[in-house]
Amino acid sequence: MTAPEPSRTVGAAVPIGPPGVPVTHISQAHPDRVEVRGRDLADDLMGRLTFTEYFHLLLTGEEPTEQQRYFLDLLLVAIAEHGMMPTNVAARMTLAADPGSLHGAVAAGILGAGPVILGTAEECARLLTELRATGTAPDEAAHRIRADGGKVPGFGHPVHKPLDPRAERILALAGEHGAAGEHVALARALRDGVAAAYGRPLTMNVSLPIAAVLLDLGFPATTVKAVPILARTASLLAHLAEEREHPVGFLMAGHAEDAITYEP
Amino acid sequence: MTAPEPSRTVGAAVPIGPPGVPVTHISQAHPDRVEVRGRDLADDLMGRLTFTEYFHLLLTGEEPTEQQRYFLDLLLVAIAEHGMMPTNVAARMTLAADPGSLHGAVAAGILGAGPVILGTAEECARLLTELRATGTAPDEAAHRIRADGGKVPGFGHPVHKPLDPRAERILALAGEHGAAGEHVALARALRDGVAAAYGRPLTMNVSLPIAAVLLDLGFPATTVKAVPILARTASLLAHLAEEREHPVGFLMAGHAEDAITYEP
Amino acid sequence: MTAPEPSRTVGAAVPIGPPGVPVTHISQAHPDRVEVRGRDLADDLMGRLTFTEYFHLLLTGEEPTEQQRYFLDLLLVAIAEHGMMPTNVAARMTLAADPGSLHGAVAAGILGAGPVILGTAEECARLLTELRATGTAPDEAAHRIRADGGKVPGFGHPVHKPLDPRAERILALAGEHGAAGEHVALARALRDGVAAAYGRPLTMNVSLPIAAVLLDLGFPATTVKAVPILARTASLLAHLAEEREHPVGFLMAGHAEDAITYEP
Amino acid sequence: MTAPEPSRTVGAAVPIGPPGVPVTHISQAHPDRVEVRGRDLADDLMGRLTFTEYFHLLLTGEEPTEQQRYFLDLLLVAIAEHGMMPTNVAARMTLAADPGSLHGAVAAGILGAGPVILGTAEECARLLTELRATGTAPDEAAHRIRADGGKVPGFGHPVHKPLDPRAERILALAGEHGAAGEHVALARALRDGVAAAYGRPLTMNVSLPIAAVLLDLGFPATTVKAVPILARTASLLAHLAEEREHPVGFLMAGHAEDAITYEP
Repeated sequence: MTAPEPSRTVGAAVPIGPPGVPVTHISQAHPDRVEVRGRDLADDLMGRLTFTEYFHLLLTGEEPTEQQRYFLDLLLVAIAEHGMMPTNVAARMTLAADPGSLHGAVAAGILGAGPVILGTAEECARLLTELRATGTAPDEAAHRIRADGGKVPGFGHPVHKPLDPRAERILALAGEHGAAGEHVALARALRDGVAAAYGRPLTMNVSLPIAAVLLDLGFPATTVKAVPILARTASLLAHLAEEREHPVGFLMAGHAEDAITYEP
Repeated sequence: MTAPEPSRTVGAAVPIGPPGVPVTHISQAHPDRVEVRGRDLADDLMGRLTFTEYFHLLLTGEEPTEQQRYFLDLLLVAIAEHGMMPTNVAARMTLAADPGSLHGAVAAGILGAGPVILGTAEECARLLTELRATGTAPDEAAHRIRADGGKVPGFGHPVHKPLDPRAERILALAGEHGAAGEHVALARALRDGVAAAYGRPLTMNVSLPIAAVLLDLGFPATTVKAVPILARTASLLAHLAEEREHPVGFLMAGHAEDAITYEP
Repeated sequence: MTAPEPSRTVGAAVPIGPPGVPVTHISQAHPDRVEVRGRDLADDLMGRLTFTEYFHLLLTGEEPTEQQRYFLDLLLVAIAEHGMMPTNVAARMTLAADPGSLHGAVAAGILGAGPVILGTAEECARLLTELRATGTAPDEAAHRIRADGGKVPGFGHPVHKPLDPRAERILALAGEHGAAGEHVALARALRDGVAAAYGRPLTMNVSLPIAAVLLDLGFPATTVKAVPILARTASLLAHLAEEREHPVGFLMAGHAEDAITYEP
Repeated sequence: MTAPEPSRTVGAAVPIGPPGVPVTHISQAHPDRVEVRGRDLADDLMGRLTFTEYFHLLLTGEEPTEQQRYFLDLLLVAIAEHGMMPTNVAARMTLAADPGSLHGAVAAGILGAGPVILGTAEECARLLTELRATGTAPDEAAHRIRADGGKVPGFGHPVHKPLDPRAERILALAGEHGAAGEHVALARALRDGVAAAYGRPLTMNVSLPIAAVLLDLGFPATTVKAVPILARTASLLAHLAEEREHPVGFLMAGHAEDAITYEP
């Protein structure tokens, strides 16, 4: 049954929402210390962990291996910045309209991190996981998806042709560092399968190697979407710092507006 | 004059908004490469820079020194996570209500990163900059602020008493690593001035050392607010990953609702 | 092919995004007038149309009939407010954390208007449209959905049992005012079908009659989601006005936090 | 003292946040009814009140007089729509990037409803209230603000010159309907004072009459910001409905991007 309004009856004993023991494993603040994932934030973590290592600890409960750390840094760097993206444009216009709220403009930018712009890494992870679990051959999968009128996640890019340099670099470094496992192999095979199914090579974009490497390194599925969001937040903060110093938000809005004709 | 609606007249030659050459210095995507801050993303930056180093490059245009890198990591780790904060609570409720939009829930959480919760680092930076520029003695400033009925930014904390362990740790590491300059000295003197002005010691919270260290290491003022926002995004992603696996958002909403009585 | 980053190549002739003539039919500001949907805002619309009539004009390009106006008002009133909902809780916490940004807190609240809380009206509209188009009997559809392990949209409510008083009132007024057509009849039949399929009556919640009446009155499908969002914005503004005068946001956050135990 | 992190100590007796009896006066859902502002939603309000009347009831606790209702409708209509505003542009780009989240795109658009675009009505209300309370002559205030290098809120507009047709229409209707009291008189006098202080007439924009009329009709100050936010939400929903049918978001983003040159 759909539950459109999860308000509780007054005094109801049973809370709304999926059941679950009301527990968090992340952190707790005390008057004299902050405990994070069972560790003392000030005495143990601050000054010892890098932000990337800490992000891994926060997200998974464990400190990364050196290899996990290396690739987490690599993937965050790979996906953070890509020019004057629509999300950066929207965020800069929002800051121009409300200059006092940097976090409001960041939020506006993050709201564009949807499936069209950043969400395909998660779809890629699902596909790779399914291929591996079912033993489906990548070229068979590509043909089936094409026959169904679908699109194979992780392929095609409006700017990068014939290759997405970031995707190639991730694959190369995964090979060099011994991080390329079954999912990376499936990603590579999928490229051939897609070329066969569509009758021409398609650009493998950055989302597929991100998903493949994260899966091969044992990251939980939740990281696949978290990595692009954290990365793009860094990019948004850079664009908004520039916007504060050197505003172009309203100028871009003016060009956008002028491109559209009003017809009653 | 206030300009409530910066729409442009059709065909207007002069764009609305602060003047400025329409330039960005951050990045540009080309078919075969992505250039970021004058560097090749795939060939030069990916696999070489950590995410923290890249964040510094994105934000400032320059790669950090090792000391800047160390303290940027330290400060990001210091401010990221602090228990089941109101922003984490709001984000978890939002994900419970709209489970398909991780980025929507992150945005909702970031919207709470306002002056009450995260914004004081920027106020601290302003105060320290002003003290340094004018040569005002910190205890004089503290007395004046108190006399005006104001609050000295960077002092007081609802949980941490008598000391904020994160603030102390930052000060200690700044000393050990030779990163404590004039702004850190002003922050320390301000603690004494505040104790004198208010007749009792007040907790120096994490915001003041963050601001002081960033200023002493030559970070531009824009980083002072960007650091907490990026840090808290990592924390939000961790809470939302946990919420996906182990939902408590609606349960928390139920407890929140039950705490309030309706009286017509 | 998926296009994760719709940036344009520099100087590219073909814009990214779905094709379409770059036209808007909504409005245009001129130095001496504002034209909205072919009408003069100041001289014709202001003071003549109610906000509800104007909302209809904005959304559809046409002024509503008196019956459409009556039911648009009715449905907006029906869905706007429902107690201390999770979205209101999240918005109040956000305002407490960033008191200067009323619009930021409204945005945080709207971000919770997802499928669990407000989105089922759109699913209901899809189901009713499909039933009508295919001639599928409602009880057959209900049995099929149940057999597939799904949930019939528009049924079940955590608070309202056995009836949702708002749903019943909408159905009654639709009947009285001659607005109950085929979609309302399908909604009523679906209630019986659901009771048969699940072996017991389930609460028809407010989403199903909202969708049915909008469809019967000829509203385009886009209104089905727009109505709850506009309605809830009014509710959020009321809660946030109260929060400004009489803050309970952090108190609710405290109760929410206390309900969850930290376990490393 | 600033309180950067209002987390509570576990088991703390005293909640964080401004003190106040934990009460809401807005509404409560019960299994068989929803009570809003002491009235039965289904039996009393639905089908009797228009959405505008209900918005007034939600916000203030009282049903509006016919005159309040008339002007609330008028002001909501006046401020809702004004062409392809930067906020509409940002919202359309956000929907293009995340087509499944209408509410996410609405939230992105609302985040731009800051002081530059929509916030001056609140500043106008403050100024009018202060003028009235202190008995300061409007022209004296205008000269003082100019001498201090400030801007008089409610004056100047990038498109509307020499008059903002919406502002004139509100003033005219306020006169015709006997709604023009002391605040409207102050607004008119301020126009003359501004012309004298700046040596030339400046456009009185829509924000000043909105504030003046709301104050003259006895609306609480909280409505002054709530009215533009609700109004613009209606406009955003119209633009996003059009964007769904006839997408121009990425095309506008492309034009915005092309207007900016990358220089390393």
